[in-house]
Amino acid sequence: MADTNAALEYFAAHQCPEQWKGFLNATAAELSSHFGPDDLRRVMHGIGSRFAAEIELPDSNTVPAMEAAMSAVWQKLNWGWVELSEEAGSLHLVHHCSPLLAAFGADALSWTPAFLEGAYQQWFLQLGASDVLRVRQLAPAERQTAIVFSFGK
Amino acid sequence: MADTNAALEYFAAHQCPEQWKGFLNATAAELSSHFGPDDLRRVMHGIGSRFAAEIELPDSNTVPAMEAAMSAVWQKLNWGWVELSEEAGSLHLVHHCSPLLAAFGADALSWTPAFLEGAYQQWFLQLGASDVLRVRQLAPAERQTAIVFSFGK
Amino acid sequence: MADTNAALEYFAAHQCPEQWKGFLNATAAELSSHFGPDDLRRVMHGIGSRFAAEIELPDSNTVPAMEAAMSAVWQKLNWGWVELSEEAGSLHLVHHCSPLLAAFGADALSWTPAFLEGAYQQWFLQLGASDVLRVRQLAPAERQTAIVFSFGK
Amino acid sequence: MADTNAALEYFAAHQCPEQWKGFLNATAAELSSHFGPDDLRRVMHGIGSRFAAEIELPDSNTVPAMEAAMSAVWQKLNWGWVELSEEAGSLHLVHHCSPLLAAFGADALSWTPAFLEGAYQQWFLQLGASDVLRVRQLAPAERQTAIVFSFGK
Repeated sequence: MADTNAALEYFAAHQCPEQWKGFLNATAAELSSHFGPDDLRRVMHGIGSRFAAEIELPDSNTVPAMEAAMSAVWQKLNWGWVELSEEAGSLHLVHHCSPLLAAFGADALSWTPAFLEGAYQQWFLQLGASDVLRVRQLAPAERQTAIVFSFGK
Repeated sequence: MADTNAALEYFAAHQCPEQWKGFLNATAAELSSHFGPDDLRRVMHGIGSRFAAEIELPDSNTVPAMEAAMSAVWQKLNWGWVELSEEAGSLHLVHHCSPLLAAFGADALSWTPAFLEGAYQQWFLQLGASDVLRVRQLAPAERQTAIVFSFGK
Repeated sequence: MADTNAALEYFAAHQCPEQWKGFLNATAAELSSHFGPDDLRRVMHGIGSRFAAEIELPDSNTVPAMEAAMSAVWQKLNWGWVELSEEAGSLHLVHHCSPLLAAFGADALSWTPAFLEGAYQQWFLQLGASDVLRVRQLAPAERQTAIVFSFGK
Repeated sequence: MADTNAALEYFAAHQCPEQWKGFLNATAAELSSHFGPDDLRRVMHGIGSRFAAEIELPDSNTVPAMEAAMSAVWQKLNWGWVELSEEAGSLHLVHHCSPLLAAFGADALSWTPAFLEGAYQQWFLQLGASDVLRVRQLAPAERQTAIVFSFGK
């Protein structure tokens, strides 16, 4: 287990290429010095929304098909993968192995997951969901764990 | 020459890893929708300043030593390299092969070079320059060309 | 022009990620110490053939369609791109911006292009060409230039 | 635990850049078709030896200093890290998170670790060890586990 944790920590820290690591860490620090938590999440949500709008998902009518389509995008970019499951009246999303920690650091984990929120929101719209339904992060992100969202009313 | 231009364009476009290209393009679009040109340059200047503050340059007392120290940092990160030369009362900086175009797109070239401005300003301070002296971009950046700055009063 | 050449040289040298540059340079040196030029080309041809066999090209009935299909594979992997043109009784192939120089060094350019030869041979077979037709390198590869092949009898 | 294993598997599979994954997999298959296990290990040992000879370790007189010097090289290249510990009359080496599995595949794990053997042998020589002492792999490598060597008589 000690080895497993060390390996996970090593891989997570090396997931972001050096070309952007210093830049993105500095970006998180600079933006945090200008904006409060709500504005930071709004900016990241907007970035995620624009990011996803540039990527056309294949038509996906079932939850497993959506999971496969979204995960294929994330994996091709080395942004991890997502698991979707239906719960009473909503969808449950678990995003694994995103490079947000490696890129922006642990302090920024309180707002960087809004990028994923914005991306999923945009993709569900693309796939025909009503815009009454919202993607919401369910719990604070922690180091080396998946980030959890719900999609519903 | 046609081949040379095609090769340069190819390499420039592939300088930013896919993991961050979509993200950074979306970031440029999102920030441009909120801020005007002066604010965008101020944010990028601040990011450059924080980026450079995390990197300790070796003591460099001559212009060639500074050029070598700064270029070593940029090259290790695949951010190109810089040429420094003395001109009447100021230093002339030519930054080659930065990934700014590949990462943020051509439209953002009007403000993304402020990142380099902020980084050089910070490094000159680190090396003991008076903070009366300023780094200023001398001409708009263009596709596939170097970005030119001066450092002086 | 001086700047253009410096930029091309910079980009070409940085095309291979650091994770594999030392390994691949050492591989070229080690294999060269065991094998003569013909064996080295045969090994690289075999690697290219197996590499291409793992990738299914979309059906391509015209020369432009083949060029597009092959270039799409190369570009996705940052292995450059290819131009195809018909000449009397044969196809002319120009492969631009491969990472062979960055990965294996200048000395190995006498045999590393056989990888591309093997890959193209395999893809033409896949697309239905008679195996009487052969891919052959037309001229020695040089630094920073395209590598030229013909496909015909 | 299921999540931990899935994350480890994801990270391990994505440790080798796409630019070289297909090439290196094909290389393993091609070399395996020409050579038996002993020859394959000899070639990889030779590559490791040449690789390490190009890298000058800082002088290291203690086991922790050697561990730090070697791990710094591996980490900079995203080749994992090594733990060294003294055991009765020999050194015990545990190499974590190498990209050998991602690059060459599971079948080749019977011979690819000889690259690390050759590299460590060369570095111990560089650091002044007697060439009577040998690096030997202690147990077959398995997916997602560290690779274990001893250094001694």
